Amino acid sequence: MISVGVIMGSDSDFSIMEEAAKILQQFSVPFEMKISSAHRTLKRTVEWVESFEKQGGKVIIAGAGMAAHLPGVIAGATTLPVIGIPIKSGALEGVDALYAIVQMPPGIPVATVGINGARNAALLAVEMLAIADLELQNQLKAFRQKMAADVEAKDSALQDKLKA
Amino acid sequence: MISVGVIMGSDSDFSIMEEAAKILQQFSVPFEMKISSAHRTLKRTVEWVESFEKQGGKVIIAGAGMAAHLPGVIAGATTLPVIGIPIKSGALEGVDALYAIVQMPPGIPVATVGINGARNAALLAVEMLAIADLELQNQLKAFRQKMAADVEAKDSALQDKLKA
Amino acid sequence: MISVGVIMGSDSDFSIMEEAAKILQQFSVPFEMKISSAHRTLKRTVEWVESFEKQGGKVIIAGAGMAAHLPGVIAGATTLPVIGIPIKSGALEGVDALYAIVQMPPGIPVATVGINGARNAALLAVEMLAIADLELQNQLKAFRQKMAADVEAKDSALQDKLKA
Amino acid sequence: MISVGVIMGSDSDFSIMEEAAKILQQFSVPFEMKISSAHRTLKRTVEWVESFEKQGGKVIIAGAGMAAHLPGVIAGATTLPVIGIPIKSGALEGVDALYAIVQMPPGIPVATVGINGARNAALLAVEMLAIADLELQNQLKAFRQKMAADVEAKDSALQDKLKA
Amino acid sequence: MISVGVIMGSDSDFSIMEEAAKILQQFSVPFEMKISSAHRTLKRTVEWVESFEKQGGKVIIAGAGMAAHLPGVIAGATTLPVIGIPIKSGALEGVDALYAIVQMPPGIPVATVGINGARNAALLAVEMLAIADLELQNQLKAFRQKMAADVEAKDSALQDKLKA
Amino acid sequence: MISVGVIMGSDSDFSIMEEAAKILQQFSVPFEMKISSAHRTLKRTVEWVESFEKQGGKVIIAGAGMAAHLPGVIAGATTLPVIGIPIKSGALEGVDALYAIVQMPPGIPVATVGINGARNAALLAVEMLAIADLELQNQLKAFRQKMAADVEAKDSALQDKLKA
Amino acid sequence: MISVGVIMGSDSDFSIMEEAAKILQQFSVPFEMKISSAHRTLKRTVEWVESFEKQGGKVIIAGAGMAAHLPGVIAGATTLPVIGIPIKSGALEGVDALYAIVQMPPGIPVATVGINGARNAALLAVEMLAIADLELQNQLKAFRQKMAADVEAKDSALQDKLKA
Amino acid sequence: MISVGVIMGSDSDFSIMEEAAKILQQFSVPFEMKISSAHRTLKRTVEWVESFEKQGGKVIIAGAGMAAHLPGVIAGATTLPVIGIPIKSGALEGVDALYAIVQMPPGIPVATVGINGARNAALLAVEMLAIADLELQNQLKAFRQKMAADVEAKDSALQDKLKA
Repeated sequence: MISVGVIMGSDSDFSIMEEAAKILQQFSVPFEMKISSAHRTLKRTVEWVESFEKQGGKVIIAGAGMAAHLPGVIAGATTLPVIGIPIKSGALEGVDALYAIVQMPPGIPVATVGINGARNAALLAVEMLAIADLELQNQLKAFRQKMAADVEAKDSALQDKLKA
Repeated sequence: MISVGVIMGSDSDFSIMEEAAKILQQFSVPFEMKISSAHRTLKRTVEWVESFEKQGGKVIIAGAGMAAHLPGVIAGATTLPVIGIPIKSGALEGVDALYAIVQMPPGIPVATVGINGARNAALLAVEMLAIADLELQNQLKAFRQKMAADVEAKDSALQDKLKA
Repeated sequence: MISVGVIMGSDSDFSIMEEAAKILQQFSVPFEMKISSAHRTLKRTVEWVESFEKQGGKVIIAGAGMAAHLPGVIAGATTLPVIGIPIKSGALEGVDALYAIVQMPPGIPVATVGINGARNAALLAVEMLAIADLELQNQLKAFRQKMAADVEAKDSALQDKLKA
Repeated sequence: MISVGVIMGSDSDFSIMEEAAKILQQFSVPFEMKISSAHRTLKRTVEWVESFEKQGGKVIIAGAGMAAHLPGVIAGATTLPVIGIPIKSGALEGVDALYAIVQMPPGIPVATVGINGARNAALLAVEMLAIADLELQNQLKAFRQKMAADVEAKDSALQDKLKA
Repeated sequence: MISVGVIMGSDSDFSIMEEAAKILQQFSVPFEMKISSAHRTLKRTVEWVESFEKQGGKVIIAGAGMAAHLPGVIAGATTLPVIGIPIKSGALEGVDALYAIVQMPPGIPVATVGINGARNAALLAVEMLAIADLELQNQLKAFRQKMAADVEAKDSALQDKLKA
Repeated sequence: MISVGVIMGSDSDFSIMEEAAKILQQFSVPFEMKISSAHRTLKRTVEWVESFEKQGGKVIIAGAGMAAHLPGVIAGATTLPVIGIPIKSGALEGVDALYAIVQMPPGIPVATVGINGARNAALLAVEMLAIADLELQNQLKAFRQKMAADVEAKDSALQDKLKA
Repeated sequence: MISVGVIMGSDSDFSIMEEAAKILQQFSVPFEMKISSAHRTLKRTVEWVESFEKQGGKVIIAGAGMAAHLPGVIAGATTLPVIGIPIKSGALEGVDALYAIVQMPPGIPVATVGINGARNAALLAVEMLAIADLELQNQLKAFRQKMAADVEAKDSALQDKLKA
Repeated sequence: MISVGVIMGSDSDFSIMEEAAKILQQFSVPFEMKISSAHRTLKRTVEWVESFEKQGGKVIIAGAGMAAHLPGVIAGATTLPVIGIPIKSGALEGVDALYAIVQMPPGIPVATVGINGARNAALLAVEMLAIADLELQNQLKAFRQKMAADVEAKDSALQDKLKA
């Protein structure tokens, strides 16, 4: 059963959104990816959200740039948690998308990550799923330990380099 | 027949949106006002837009604050011209709303006016209607002459004051 | 008869403004393009606006960068609807132009689109003209259907790619 | 068993964070509130996080203003989902807090809500808990219906007012 | 003979522009004040500029808020030095006016002072006139000495207060 | 006799400041260029300013990037008009320099031009000198006519291109 | 012997700078306060800096608003560590002062604290002095423990309130 | 004995932080470099800080990008002076890091330098150490003289070039 839906409004966002997919694969979390627009195909988008929820989907990750309405529109169409990724594009380089996603009105939250933060969006989805999934909790802890070990390894490499 | 729809997501925006209504009344342009949300009542909003268009409505003015999605969502649901008013509210004081309205992706324009610019939104709607309405063109020209005369009157008052 | 005037202050803006022209051609809307500056050739600009209006022109699209005064100055010289395109240039990358176009004082609106949004400016002009032109309304609906179909096609391509 | 921890660095943030508590009460979600600082009592904060996680806590909501480090520091100390609330304070009025919370480096996400968005933070926490709690899902749907009904009621009141 | 023209687009700017007038009076520089708009009375504004220049006017100070076009439009209509004052008003609190005045395109400079900097605008005008006016040079030097003496007096007062 | 001093804090600003020199040459205005820092060689800078003023210099153009103190420090050391050019450099791309130059405290004005606006700084200096120099006034008018003619020539070229 | 100099350009900054004085008193660090301007009394300011350094002064705290040059100018006139406090004032509310203080060019650092951060500026000065002063180190540790205890006391008060 | 600790959260910051190391080497100040993260290895980071302080370390320089928590977290874990370097990275290009470092809450200062200002961070550390180190004071004065001489040399080169 698909747990996470990863949706973007345009295939131009794919190279960023793909990083979310890679993390989900790494955690063996079943997901689907979708291109559907909040403006050009609004009804289709809402139908997809409703269908995703009915079929047991649990978390939605939505990425969008500029006047980024996709995460908010989806959040209005479901009570599943929605994670929004502001995507850097155009002259304002993602500040517009950040504001358009994070500043949601009271009642309809979007869990916003940093600009182009697809990797963190996926980790956040895993953390949400891990609330009721001990196996994912363990994977997350291992992932963190791996990250910590990487920092230590980089520090060791630096110390070696400085001594050389 | 109603020509202009004036829509807002919340009654807290009424005091701003009312300025648009006053201009439309001044030009005797028939309009309706509506409260409907892009997030809390998305389908109802889209239905209103479709119904407004079917009944011969011609221009929609939509105001919203913060992550202001209402104008863009409406623009995606109709080919009528949509005028967006960024409303000042919250910590970012309308910059968020401005970016969330004006930075629309290619294909779905929103005619954006300044922050809290409800008066200008209504004048813009009148200008659009005047394209095919000679009477409105004349009213607009008279309105401009009145504004110019006001500037001149204020200048005269200043000159008198300076002489005194 | 020319319906839309597309004006810019400098030929350096042509590559952006050309996108507006392409959309207008696509909709078979007769237009003219003009280079005239709000600062260097102010009177010539105002004369062009007045002449354009007298000859039955209906909408003006004006693009400008930095302290972008052209759309506002034109809006002051006509009661035709004026669409402003903030053009990205200089160190502030279009934020200056956006503010200088959208934040018009009460009484003289400019319908502002996103930074470098020439394509949307032209679509907005078509929407305005379509208020009184059933043929353009139909073309706009077809254009939207084409955009929606493009989104669906891109989604299909993505689904195929993910399955592969 | 406590599901949600609501933590702030200073009691000056209490009036905002209290809105989160009210939503959690409304959904009968057991929670605790905590004052502990990322800078003044770092170890105590980390100990609280570890203890909260061990005792079965599921989601943490952390609010902070200015150089808002509390949500990020907590996110680094747990694999539970952490929701960050940028609090408006000081000369930058919350933009500093927003950037300091949302722009987390890869690997350690914080689910960020809007400036002063405590209400949405709590709703997001409820949505996360509802992933594995059918009763909460139903409550959320009822909450949304109530919000939609409120919009409709406000619209009715507006229509009555306009007719009057 | 009038040396300096002090112009604003609206009488709402008078309380700021008045500070410029006070400085000019202090230096006995003959000036006139004018209300005329770049948008509502463009031709009248240009005519005033041309007339001011013909009658031997030497420097123009222009103040405007929001999408502040008045200084730039005037600069395009004369080769006299034009000093622009961005006036704080509206949601963007003068940043829009600053950008709209200072970011002039190549060829048409505006000497921009700080937001609401009417006092400095007038001093700058006096400095320009002093290039060819020894008496004004001496007044400026005296003005500076007075300012320096004020700083020293305030410091003395502080030292007394601290000792007390 | 030298009329204009063109000063920068570092030779890295030369490529921008050179544009000012070219305009001054074009108007046959005698000038000198100087490298001297507000921080690294403060006293030398002040001595240069005092010496420049004593030898009959009339206007100073100062360019600086980042925390751009050079124009303001010079303005404090002379009653000659000082023109400040914010230079684009570093991560903030000139916004820091713009604010650090334009937002001078009351009493010490700096005539600020746009970011990297060296060309306009020189034209502004010429306009100041022209207050008491009929020959320069005529040159400025010719310069403007040349600019206007350039706009018209570019428009003609565009019309030819569009017809082709 | 005076260790710390606390300097501001205007007595309008006194209410903020006084907070620094209070912290220094609390740590029994001898200090003097001074009003002297980077623009209005530049030479006097430099002389004070040189005299302060000669008499054995060790750290300088300088506060300024808007185009805040005082900290940087002082930093250029001494090799003592200079701490800069951006003071909130004017339309830009301290962002201008922050940029004008923190973005110093290479070679002349200013240790910048947050907007209106006079308290932290004084603590930073104490930390610098404590490098070679064991007594101050101990005081700092006690100060931190007191702050930590305050956080714990506020948390206890909150727990009591929630139970009530 | 090591005087200065130079710490960064990731080896991607090394190319910037290296500039600090070069300055410290130039002044023969003993230092160590460290990679340790505020989020991924928080405890290790705090342990390093405590150990550094115990072993007689005197100043810490910490660099971080985006939601830059490292300098603040370290400042909370020690009473040594901490110098923070906002590093330019990601879509916000260092503004996020600047705000996240400089806007520290009362009680825990971070001495912030400009974005990517590693060179100035090291000079600031040297200035702090020089408070109690006459030899370093002399070195700093020589360094300043060298910088001043460089400015003069560049000016001479410019004068030669202009004469040629």
